[in-house]
Amino acid sequence: MTRDPILVADIGGTNTRLGLAGANGILEGSLQRYSNSDHASFYALVGAYLRQQKVGKCHKACLAVAAPVENDAITLTNRDWHIDKAGARSVTGADEIRFLNDFEALGFAIDRLSAHQVSHVAGPQIATSQNGTRLVLGAGTGFNAAAMTWGVDAQPVVHAAECGHMTLPVETVSDLSLRNHLAQNRGRASVERALSGQGVLEIYQWVCSQAGATPRHLTSQEIVQEAIEQRDGACETAAKILVRLLARVAGDLVLAFLPMGGLYLSGGVTRACKTLISSDLFWNELTAKGRQSDLLRSIPVYLMTDDLAALEGCLAAMMRPASQQTPSLQLRHNLNSIATKVAGF
Amino acid sequence: MTRDPILVADIGGTNTRLGLAGANGILEGSLQRYSNSDHASFYALVGAYLRQQKVGKCHKACLAVAAPVENDAITLTNRDWHIDKAGARSVTGADEIRFLNDFEALGFAIDRLSAHQVSHVAGPQIATSQNGTRLVLGAGTGFNAAAMTWGVDAQPVVHAAECGHMTLPVETVSDLSLRNHLAQNRGRASVERALSGQGVLEIYQWVCSQAGATPRHLTSQEIVQEAIEQRDGACETAAKILVRLLARVAGDLVLAFLPMGGLYLSGGVTRACKTLISSDLFWNELTAKGRQSDLLRSIPVYLMTDDLAALEGCLAAMMRPASQQTPSLQLRHNLNSIATKVAGF
Repeated sequence: MTRDPILVADIGGTNTRLGLAGANGILEGSLQRYSNSDHASFYALVGAYLRQQKVGKCHKACLAVAAPVENDAITLTNRDWHIDKAGARSVTGADEIRFLNDFEALGFAIDRLSAHQVSHVAGPQIATSQNGTRLVLGAGTGFNAAAMTWGVDAQPVVHAAECGHMTLPVETVSDLSLRNHLAQNRGRASVERALSGQGVLEIYQWVCSQAGATPRHLTSQEIVQEAIEQRDGACETAAKILVRLLARVAGDLVLAFLPMGGLYLSGGVTRACKTLISSDLFWNELTAKGRQSDLLRSIPVYLMTDDLAALEGCLAAMMRPASQQTPSLQLRHNLNSIATKVAGF
Repeated sequence: MTRDPILVADIGGTNTRLGLAGANGILEGSLQRYSNSDHASFYALVGAYLRQQKVGKCHKACLAVAAPVENDAITLTNRDWHIDKAGARSVTGADEIRFLNDFEALGFAIDRLSAHQVSHVAGPQIATSQNGTRLVLGAGTGFNAAAMTWGVDAQPVVHAAECGHMTLPVETVSDLSLRNHLAQNRGRASVERALSGQGVLEIYQWVCSQAGATPRHLTSQEIVQEAIEQRDGACETAAKILVRLLARVAGDLVLAFLPMGGLYLSGGVTRACKTLISSDLFWNELTAKGRQSDLLRSIPVYLMTDDLAALEGCLAAMMRPASQQTPSLQLRHNLNSIATKVAGF
């Protein structure tokens, strides 16, 4: 191993993917996937990884996490893991630590995907606007999205979001019954109460309860697998409900972000449903937006098939000169001070 | 009148606001508001305005419209008006015509508002992140939103949207009953079926039908006025439903755009509901986002009180050098061609 590589990590709610990068990109042999539940903390996990890779010190580290990124510390939304920059610096030896939201990392990955990492699943083959906004969204342990636009310097700008916490879109009595099932003991049902691994399980349980049937002891992966292989009616119904809701949410987010450059789907649950996403079920619901249906029909839909795509995004974000990572803060601060004075608040 | 001013126009579904700008900004005496229904077409309206202002030829024109802006032609979503660049050039004599979505114009206006054009209505007084994204949204003839971010050149970048066509967020049996009322003969109920002038009317009619009462013959303005003055129970119920739905949608869009720089409300219907928006009713629903409620509570909410704010945004958009209006298209095109070749699609 060469000295002082860049550490890239995608810390999901269930798994963490790690890699090391040198001057020519991510080192192929360095890619590893760990189950979070096998480790007491992120620090323990990354320590074990670096020992295994025989790396004493990293140059920089970019950590993509399934959580909102605001300051120098992160608590994973779906797991009780706390990560802060001091701790990450200590375990990696890196001088510079950058946190990204995991979908922010996927946003940075969009224009670096190679053919084996992406698959066209619906809509036109190619976007009419090659320069348009692109949107990545999907379901894994949780649900989220990120828009990617082009800056005036022709570099990608990625906009983080917390779309998993938006209101689950309900349109029928049946939807509302499912929504109430998902909202039990929680007060509300957000998008990711349905569009997530746990969501698959709870949708399946609701489908069984509606049919007066006893649910089988299945994991969310098994439920989707049974559905795709058409071996269990309740699993099929559950998976179809999931994909229909995913399409409805995706259509709503297309209207919010207008990704004329393309819609990219990601996440483990989304990928598992690929055959359903490639079917009319997904397309018809995605485009069912009244007077804006033609707009929806004009956007190509791709599936990010590579579970490690976010690591490419981490590297892309890290390789940008610091001055380009965020707009000129000082200048903006000055402008805002002036604006604040003028506006009087 | 000096020769060759810049024409700025905000063409809503109901009214059109017009102004002329010189080197020092919009000329105060030039501001006019017209009712669209008094004119056969936009061209007729703008022709009458320019004659009244004794302007023979405009230098440039920036037209903000309540419609998606894609190409060189626009059809207003909420009115049967067609506007194209050739026609606009012909009636104004301008060499350069720019189309903006009306909320895109409001996005450009955000950092140019003076104290009398904006009012703090909820949340903290000042944003923790002066450099953060800002979001403007609201209800008028229709509903929409636009996010404003800062480019690497410290200039505002505004992201157009079609949020009015997103799914109306339903959470209760009562919400679903209203949703079904709004969806009658339309197949679905989008956000703007409720959050618009027509929405106010239809919510009021639904409230009356639920109570077994005969609705009075009131305009949407009258319904809101009766509600604010607490003179009619059904009007009050209708306005409260509208404001609760506005808050729910606003909260969802905050999760999508993370406007840590502030949430700005606009639109005639929104402004008419100012006292309700300043109340707990709005704030409690806006922040009712489960684990993300603290995030919602950290964002100041302002009301754009000036109906003419979009004209400032038109001028701001028009004054930017052409090279800064959109990212370097040629460079991006080249980058995309390379990416497309690499990705094999």
